[in-house]
Order: sequence, then C-alpha cells, then structure tokens
Amino acid sequence: MPRYIACICSYDGAQFCGSQRQINGPTVQGEIERSLEAILKHPVPITMAGRTDAGVHATGQCFRFTTENQIPVERVPLALNSTLNKSVRVLRAWEVDEEFNPRFSAKGRVYRYCIECAEVGNVLLRQIAAHFRGTLNIDKMNEAAQAFVGRHDFAAWQSAGSPTPTTIREVRRLQIVQRRNVFGSDLIEIEIEADAFLYQMVRNIVGALMWAGQGKLTKNEIESLMEGRDRTKCPPPAPPQGLCLIEVKY
Amino acid sequence: MPRYIACICSYDGAQFCGSQRQINGPTVQGEIERSLEAILKHPVPITMAGRTDAGVHATGQCFRFTTENQIPVERVPLALNSTLNKSVRVLRAWEVDEEFNPRFSAKGRVYRYCIECAEVGNVLLRQIAAHFRGTLNIDKMNEAAQAFVGRHDFAAWQSAGSPTPTTIREVRRLQIVQRRNVFGSDLIEIEIEADAFLYQMVRNIVGALMWAGQGKLTKNEIESLMEGRDRTKCPPPAPPQGLCLIEVKY
Repeated sequence: MPRYIACICSYDGAQFCGSQRQINGPTVQGEIERSLEAILKHPVPITMAGRTDAGVHATGQCFRFTTENQIPVERVPLALNSTLNKSVRVLRAWEVDEEFNPRFSAKGRVYRYCIECAEVGNVLLRQIAAHFRGTLNIDKMNEAAQAFVGRHDFAAWQSAGSPTPTTIREVRRLQIVQRRNVFGSDLIEIEIEADAFLYQMVRNIVGALMWAGQGKLTKNEIESLMEGRDRTKCPPPAPPQGLCLIEVKY
Repeated sequence: MPRYIACICSYDGAQFCGSQRQINGPTVQGEIERSLEAILKHPVPITMAGRTDAGVHATGQCFRFTTENQIPVERVPLALNSTLNKSVRVLRAWEVDEEFNPRFSAKGRVYRYCIECAEVGNVLLRQIAAHFRGTLNIDKMNEAAQAFVGRHDFAAWQSAGSPTPTTIREVRRLQIVQRRNVFGSDLIEIEIEADAFLYQMVRNIVGALMWAGQGKLTKNEIESLMEGRDRTKCPPPAPPQGLCLIEVKY
C-alpha cells in the first residue's frame, strides 16, 4: 500500500543552485531525494510546492513523496535531518491523500523579502538580506505597494523563462515594515501573499518598490506599467538573497 | 613620514580559520594584509585589537597599519572593500598617533552571544547563533550572570593555550535579553563588556549561563567554581558561531 507523505522544510538558498533538480550543481530537490533514498532504500522522487531560484531561501517550503516503507510519519523529520546537509532542515511531516499535490493543492503562498539599508552592508546579513546603499522611504513604498494588491494581470512582473496559461494572479496582502535587527542596522521587511506567483514576480515587485522608496516611481506609474504588460519597461528585479518562501497555505 | 591608520572592520567568522594569521587556512588578518598590499604596493603587517577563533564574528574589530602612501584616510574603507573578500568589510578609518596600539590602548571590549532556542534550528541563523534544543530560563540566567560581574580572578573561565601574566579581569556589564527575530523564533542575546577577556572567556561564561538557564547551575555554584580556579570543573564552552565582537572601546 503506497503512503503519501508531505513535509515542511527550510533551506539556506545560498548553498544551492535553486530548488529544482538540475545537473549543473547541488539543488534542494537533489539533496532531499538523496537523503530520502538513503533512509527508505528506494529512489524517491519528490514534488515541491514552488520553485525557488539560486540564493532564494525557504522556511516553509512543502514537498511530497510516496513510499511503501512503514517508517512512522513522526520520525521522518529526525531521520531526514540526520542525513541531510545542514543547509536543509525538515520541520514536520504528515500523511496526506493521494490527491494532495504540494503545488496544485496550495491555496496561497507567503514570501518575505529583507532589505538592509546601510552605507556598508553587514557581513552577517549578506546572504539573508539585500543590501541597499542609501535610504528608502517606507511611506512611499507602502503607498506604491497598493498598486499591486488585488486581482491583476501581472504579465509586466513576470520574468521570461517559465510560461504559464494565465498571468492573472491575486495579491492578497503586501506589507512593509522597518525593524531594527540584532546587529543594530535597519531591516526593511516586505511580506507578500498571493494565490500563486509568476516566475520572479516577488523580486520584480520588490525591484519596483525599491524605486518607489527612492522617489523614482509612483503608484500611478506602477499601474501604467501593469497595464502595459511589458517587462522591459519595468525596474530590474531585486537580488535573490533577500527572498524567503515563508509559508504555503493549503 | 610614516602614517599610522586605524580601521574598524566586520567579518563573517564562518569563512575563516580565525582572525590571526596562520598557515593552515584563510584568516581575517591574512585577507586584510593581502588587500592592503594590493592597494598600498608594499607589505603591510597589521595589529588587531583582539584574537577571535574560527567561526567567531566581528562587527567592530579594530586593526592598525603603518604606511608612507599618501592615500586620503577617508578613502581607505572604499579602497579596501573593493578588493577584500565579501566576508570582510572595513567600516571606517582614521589617523592615529604612533603610540596607538589596537590591543594595548583598548579600555574595554564588548561581545554579543546569540542563542536560538528551537526544536529545529533555523537554517538561516545556523552560522550567527548557537542552536539550543529546548528552553532556557532567562531569569535564572540573569541571576547567575551576577556572579560574573565585577573584578574577579577568571582563571576558571580561561581555556588553555594562551598564557597571560594575570587572570584578573573586570566584567562591567552582562545583560541577557530575549527577542523575537525576523524569522519568527526567539533569540537570546547575551551582551558582555569587560576591560579585557581571557582566551575563550566569553564562550566559557556563556556555557555556564546555558547550564544556569537549564537549572543545572546556580549563582552560588558559579562563585565556588570561580574560587576553585579549575577549568576542568566548569561547564563546556558554548560553540563559536554564536559569538560576535561588537565594539572595542578606546
């Protein structure tokens, strides 16, 4: 009798060439599949909720696998963590129906993007926050952010390389706060929730918000760019290291 | 005319075999000296305020060098940062007298130690905080911490390997707070200031405080260990990655 097991995992994206298996270097998928095979003694392909680029982190990525092995589900995290590279941790596991698909069963996704504004970036944050040399106006960023909230055609905010049947998405929440971090500098935290995201959509939106924070782009201009559906007219994407997949909602 | 220049720098200790030059691998000193030589076109030995072990970070380390090169002092940070490995950043530079010695002119040092209490450690914090699987009682830690404050013989809290003429030191401040971090887990931050520290003194003190937080060691017992001056009777040191040299006071 096959069993279907879903897991929540976290990973340090700086250590991988992205989440999705490929032949050019270590990937999160490759590392988890290697580890599962070592424990379950058979090849174990996994399905993940979302694809993340090289450098992008996750604290709440979801994946699923199938096995006939009778390992108690509550022991799966500890068993995996004992053989996984320290850059990946499995946080919990539970049994699911055959129909459960981490990607297509998801009702929403939450990402967080961190920006450190400082003359010289903190070395200890360089792989978990984007560094911006200057200041960003939070009020202007929050005002501009309103242009993205709601159901829109996000074609202008999708990078090339991952065709989808539709570019309509619903951004349910986009919040920007500034907080002093443990190392004494200010971190701008951008939290964004949508039903689903297009390829590099968060980084493209954050790129626009960073322009807004510098007074280089207004809410109205973002709305025009949205209508134009032309990626080449938009600000460049924010770098990958500030991005983290926080939660997949089911 | 020789010029004497002091700099404040930060570094990610995970990338180095400690601060002090050695032949077994990359060091902070080696990296800075390589970079200085590239810019000033002559060999430039540096003197640092304090020695930090492999894995230990700094956001406020001080070093000094001598040169006859006429580079404006305010351009030193940018020039160095353009050739330094990204794991080291120079934050500021200023001219000092010949007498200024980063180590012997220092009037105080401040270290911070971070502990993450969680069932599974956050992958993004694994090189900037120690992970403790369980909970630590902050009140008990703060009570025990009082045993260390003041002028004492810290022989029991010094690891072997770095003889000094005296083991008397003055701890001026030892504060422990708990804060929710950007990734949603709790970080315990221990800040400690002293005139100077013995070898691995902070990590040895934190090791004792972690026992105190688990109810395994009281303030009175720490005072007895202090009087006994016997390192082998004390709790083990806390791991290096939680430690960061925050400031050197002149």
